[in-house]
Amino acid sequence: MADDKGRAYFEAVTLKEHGRLCPDHVPEVYHFDRVMSLIGMRYLEPPHIILRKGLIAGVEYPLLAEHISEYMARTLFFTSLLHRTTTEHKRAVAEFCGNVELCRLTEQVVFSDPYKVSPHNRWTSPYLDRDVEAVREDNTLKLEVAELKSMFCERAQALIHGDLHTGSVMVTSDSTQVIDPEFAFYGPMGFDIGAFVGNLILAFFAQDGHADQENDRKAYKDWILRTIDETWNLFHKKFNALWDKHKDGFGEAYLPAIYNNPQLQLLVKQKFMKDLFHDTLGFGAAKMIRRIVGVAHVEDFESITDAGKRADCERRALDFAKMLMKERRKFQGIAEVVSAIHELHS
Amino acid sequence: MADDKGRAYFEAVTLKEHGRLCPDHVPEVYHFDRVMSLIGMRYLEPPHIILRKGLIAGVEYPLLAEHISEYMARTLFFTSLLHRTTTEHKRAVAEFCGNVELCRLTEQVVFSDPYKVSPHNRWTSPYLDRDVEAVREDNTLKLEVAELKSMFCERAQALIHGDLHTGSVMVTSDSTQVIDPEFAFYGPMGFDIGAFVGNLILAFFAQDGHADQENDRKAYKDWILRTIDETWNLFHKKFNALWDKHKDGFGEAYLPAIYNNPQLQLLVKQKFMKDLFHDTLGFGAAKMIRRIVGVAHVEDFESITDAGKRADCERRALDFAKMLMKERRKFQGIAEVVSAIHELHS
Repeated sequence: MADDKGRAYFEAVTLKEHGRLCPDHVPEVYHFDRVMSLIGMRYLEPPHIILRKGLIAGVEYPLLAEHISEYMARTLFFTSLLHRTTTEHKRAVAEFCGNVELCRLTEQVVFSDPYKVSPHNRWTSPYLDRDVEAVREDNTLKLEVAELKSMFCERAQALIHGDLHTGSVMVTSDSTQVIDPEFAFYGPMGFDIGAFVGNLILAFFAQDGHADQENDRKAYKDWILRTIDETWNLFHKKFNALWDKHKDGFGEAYLPAIYNNPQLQLLVKQKFMKDLFHDTLGFGAAKMIRRIVGVAHVEDFESITDAGKRADCERRALDFAKMLMKERRKFQGIAEVVSAIHELHS
Repeated sequence: MADDKGRAYFEAVTLKEHGRLCPDHVPEVYHFDRVMSLIGMRYLEPPHIILRKGLIAGVEYPLLAEHISEYMARTLFFTSLLHRTTTEHKRAVAEFCGNVELCRLTEQVVFSDPYKVSPHNRWTSPYLDRDVEAVREDNTLKLEVAELKSMFCERAQALIHGDLHTGSVMVTSDSTQVIDPEFAFYGPMGFDIGAFVGNLILAFFAQDGHADQENDRKAYKDWILRTIDETWNLFHKKFNALWDKHKDGFGEAYLPAIYNNPQLQLLVKQKFMKDLFHDTLGFGAAKMIRRIVGVAHVEDFESITDAGKRADCERRALDFAKMLMKERRKFQGIAEVVSAIHELHS
C-alpha cells in the first residue's frame, strides 16, 4: 500500500519532481534510501538562512518574488491538467493519496482545531481570549472554512508542496530554495500560493513588534507589501506565459480544438485566474488564523517578548485574516488586498 | 497497476459497494472472476425493462423518484467525506484512479467532442447543422463546460456511478434496479444526479415525437415533470436525513465539535445543497447536449422516424440544455427548472 511509504518517500519524490520542473529553486536530491528513510540532497551553504528568520531580522530579498513565483508557476502548471493528460494525472494522484497521514494533520491543524475547543490550541492569553472565542462563534467564518477544507480534501488540481510557509524557504540575496515538501499531495493550487502570501502578511503584522528606536520598520513593511503584490502579479504573468506556450500541448483541461480562439482563451484564463486568486486568499487567511489561535505558532510573533505588544500585532493579523476569508470574492486583484492591509493597519 | 484491472473489475467492485449501501436498488453480485472478467449477478427477471424503453412507451413508474432518490442519496452520502474519514476516502479514491480509461472516454464524449469538430459527432442533418455550429461557437457555453470538466476530472467527492442515464436503470412498476456502473470513480455527486435528471428532460422533449392520435402524451409529459421534481426533492430530503442521522459520526467534512449547532448546521446544509443543485443542473445539461450533437444518441429521439419532427424535439431540448448550463446558478429550486421546461415547450 502506498500509505506505508512514509513522509520521507513523498518528500523525496516531490523534491525530485519539483526539482525537475524548477531546478533553480529546489535543492537537488542525490540519493534516496527508502529503507533508511534517508534523503541525500544538496547542502544549502551559508549564507542561506530560513526566510522567516530573514523577515524577522528585517532583511530585504529583492529577488524573492521573482524566484518564488517562478517556483509556484512551474510546479503548479506542469503537474496540472493544463499540461498533463488524465492518464498521467490519475496515476500521480493515486500515488500521492498514500500521503494521507500528513494530509490529515493539515486538515486538523489548519481547518479544524482553530474553530473548536482543542487541547492543542494556544494563544497569547489573556489578551486574545475573547478573540479566540469569537473565531469559534463565527458561523460565517466556519461556513467558509468548511468550503476550503472540502477543496483541500477533494480537489486534485496539482502536485502542491503542501506546507509552503516562509519556514520552508531558504534564501540569500540571490538564491531562493524551497525545502521540506513532506506534506505534498495533489491538492488545490491556491493552498500553496495562499500559504506563502499568508505568511508574508503575518510577517508584515509582526513588524511593529520588532520595531525599535533604531529602526521603525516602516520601509521594511513597505517592502513586504511590495513583495506580496509582486509575488501574485509575477505568478500570474508566469503562469499565463506557460499556458500560452503550451496551449497546443497534451493538457486535458482546455483542448486546443475547443479553446484556441483568442477571445475564448482570454475568457478562460481570466476565469481560471480569478478563481485561483480567491482560493489563494481563502487558504492564505486559513493559514494565518491557525498560526495565531492553533497549535503551531510562528516565530514572527513568538519572538515579540512583550505579550501585550505581541497580542496587538496578532489581533490585527487575525482580524484581517477573518475579513479576508469571508470577503475574499470581493477582491479584484492583489493591489486591493495590499490596500486593505494598509487601511486596517493605519 | 490499478489501471490494468479493467472495466469489469470496477463494475463488480461498485456493484458490491453500492449494493451494500442500497441493496434494494442494486442487483446482488454472487461471484466475480477477475481473470475471466466475469460477473455473476442477480437476474433481473421480466417484467423488468430498461427505464428508457418504458419512457419511450409512455409507461408511468409511480415509485421511480422514490427509489432512484434513495439510491443516489445513500450511495453518494456514504461514500463521501460527510460519512468517511480522510483515510478511508483517499484509499478508495486511489483505487478508482485506476478506472482512468473510462473516465477519459466520458471526458471525450461528454465534455469535449460536442464542442469541436469531431468525426465521431453526428446529428439530425441538415435540420440541426446550424445548431451544432452554434454550440461550437458559443464561448459562454464552452467556458461553462470547461468548469464542469475540471470538476469531473479533479473533484473526488463520492463514488459515483458515472453513467446514470435512463439506460442504466431497470424497472417494473414496483422495482428499480441500477446496473452497469463500469464508469464508476470518485467524482462529483452532481454528475450522477445530473445524468438522471438530464435524461428525464430528454425523455420529456422526445414525447411530442411519440404522440399520435391515440395518445397526445400530455398526461405523460406531466408525469415526467412531476418525476423530475420529486427526484430532486426526495433526494434532497433523504440526503439531509442521512446527514442529520450521522452528524455525530466520523465524517471528516463537518466535525461535530465545530458544526453541531442548529443554526450553523442549517447554513452548512443549505450551502452544500445549493452548490450540489447547481452542479446537478450543469452536468445534466452537459449530458443532454452530448446526446443530441455527440457520438452516442438516445433511443428517445432516435426512435422518432420523421427526421424533421425529431429535429424539432432535439432543438428544443438542446436550446433548453444550453440555457440551463449557462444560467444554472440563477435557479433556486427544481420547481423553477420544471417551469422553465414548461415555458420553453409551450
